[in-house]
Amino acid sequence: MGGDFGPPSLVAGAVMALREYHHIQKLYLVGDQRQIETELAKHRCNDSRIEIVHATQVVEMSDTAWSAVRRKKHSSVSRAVDLVKHDRADAIVSAGHTGAAVAASIVKLRTLDGIDRPGIAAVLPTQFNVFVLIDAGATIDSRPEHLLQYAIMGSVYSRHVLGYKNPTVGLVSLGEEDVKGTELTKEVFKLLKRSRLNFVGNIEGRHLFEDPVEVVVCDGFVGNVILKTSESIAVAIFKWLKHELTRTKVRMAGAYVARHAFNDIKRKTNYEEYGGSPLLGVNGICIIAHGASTPLAIKNALRVAAESIEHRVNPHIVEEVRRYHETTASLEPALK
Amino acid sequence: MGGDFGPPSLVAGAVMALREYHHIQKLYLVGDQRQIETELAKHRCNDSRIEIVHATQVVEMSDTAWSAVRRKKHSSVSRAVDLVKHDRADAIVSAGHTGAAVAASIVKLRTLDGIDRPGIAAVLPTQFNVFVLIDAGATIDSRPEHLLQYAIMGSVYSRHVLGYKNPTVGLVSLGEEDVKGTELTKEVFKLLKRSRLNFVGNIEGRHLFEDPVEVVVCDGFVGNVILKTSESIAVAIFKWLKHELTRTKVRMAGAYVARHAFNDIKRKTNYEEYGGSPLLGVNGICIIAHGASTPLAIKNALRVAAESIEHRVNPHIVEEVRRYHETTASLEPALK
Repeated sequence: MGGDFGPPSLVAGAVMALREYHHIQKLYLVGDQRQIETELAKHRCNDSRIEIVHATQVVEMSDTAWSAVRRKKHSSVSRAVDLVKHDRADAIVSAGHTGAAVAASIVKLRTLDGIDRPGIAAVLPTQFNVFVLIDAGATIDSRPEHLLQYAIMGSVYSRHVLGYKNPTVGLVSLGEEDVKGTELTKEVFKLLKRSRLNFVGNIEGRHLFEDPVEVVVCDGFVGNVILKTSESIAVAIFKWLKHELTRTKVRMAGAYVARHAFNDIKRKTNYEEYGGSPLLGVNGICIIAHGASTPLAIKNALRVAAESIEHRVNPHIVEEVRRYHETTASLEPALK
Repeated sequence: MGGDFGPPSLVAGAVMALREYHHIQKLYLVGDQRQIETELAKHRCNDSRIEIVHATQVVEMSDTAWSAVRRKKHSSVSRAVDLVKHDRADAIVSAGHTGAAVAASIVKLRTLDGIDRPGIAAVLPTQFNVFVLIDAGATIDSRPEHLLQYAIMGSVYSRHVLGYKNPTVGLVSLGEEDVKGTELTKEVFKLLKRSRLNFVGNIEGRHLFEDPVEVVVCDGFVGNVILKTSESIAVAIFKWLKHELTRTKVRMAGAYVARHAFNDIKRKTNYEEYGGSPLLGVNGICIIAHGASTPLAIKNALRVAAESIEHRVNPHIVEEVRRYHETTASLEPALK
């Protein structure tokens, strides 16, 4: 029931995914049964893999995350997480209230062994590749050990899903020098330096897309700001470009001739292509789709969910955290 | 002596500014005398408005801000701030270690009455206008009252320098709803709500460039991340675009025909055009130029310095803060 465009967009995306991904065995659509049926009828879809799970409540954007979970037990997001909890589904995809999806996952699925707080791992584009930004907004008011755990989880995801062999890890700060940063980032710097991760040090926002590392670590507030700002400036630049390119007939002609170049770049910077970001650190798979999700974005979020199931990221995370505690942390009892 | 390109770029920018801005009466170049003279000779510049102030020390990027001020009393930034302190100059421009320029300004010039911490006011472009982002990186680990003071200072700057009548103020947070944010932003939200500023509520990164408010308030860490990320993604998009536009001869031809459109946009997103950002809240004028300042950026930073002198922003800030304390704060003694 979530997302800026509600059931029409979500159902349309689900139908697209079922038509394209034949390895999806079962797809639960959780929400108002009548609305879902209406939308499915529009697409003339009677795929037998669909099962509708009726939910009577909706989490509003003005609800706080924890009250949503405690008070709205029959919301679509709560019921969806229940399906994973009871092993009826392998993953959930939500385009609604991020905080509610995170809180419901924590309460019902619990965090993985050794993980205190989950983090959203957003995949962002660089010129020839992609990098992982973690935490992109799951947890606010983080402690140093949470950021260390994000670095471990981001590295595991980067290795097992994106295929980087020994992913470089950078910490978002005000400057590259070790001495720069907030109380929080200075503590995290020390933890990362002592870990066995491929930590390259502090990175500044200006290097994010130009000279990128493979895993970018920051707290959820900062990560969310990076994600949303990047998106906002990309949209703005294309809008300005369109405005400038349509100001004279000569420019319009030139732009028409070169149109494929614009389309290629637009695809690269378009969040719809990435679909959704996994919430790492919970004992289950939860994909956070963009709030303004179009059908294409939802289809791709379902693809990300399928990939996460396939790559079995969670056991690898538990193993990595265990190894960290056995090696680095055991040498420094104070860090535990 | 600061900036990624050092004296050559700084002196070249200063020479450009003197040739263009005839209302500059005096320009001190502070740093290694021999290096400065060599650079001036390259430009065949013997403008009588130039006075060289020799400085024997250089603040390194690896110095911490406070140790730089305490231990390197003969650094170029320290000597430059001294010139303002002793009324020999009206403003300083620095492209070096931001923390050192901020710390030297706080120690030598002191903060304005009613201001606890200074904030950098960066001016950023939207499609048809600009907005102020404050704090863009002067202060880290901020308290709620610091952000309230940024909002007041940003509003004053927006009104008196940029010409907005009743500037709208937004607080950077994770969502637009009042309940969303960190411990810090929730406190700031309450303070801004009770103030007489034109506060419109929380804003998300995604609205920064698309549906912008006129003053964007956040702590220095987040502001710096927004500034650097915006710059990074703009540079990256133009690089990707260039790559795509030169992949085939047809695309190259189209791009050539429409080239003026690209130049217009590039100018809009180019930090060199903005030159430098004022450090608001200190008792004097200090302009923080971009670290990677080209001569053009330095010339424009000197223009921003001249504008700041002309608009007499500081007395207006003191007046606004006084008015805040007389009205809002006096009703709520607990907020002081």
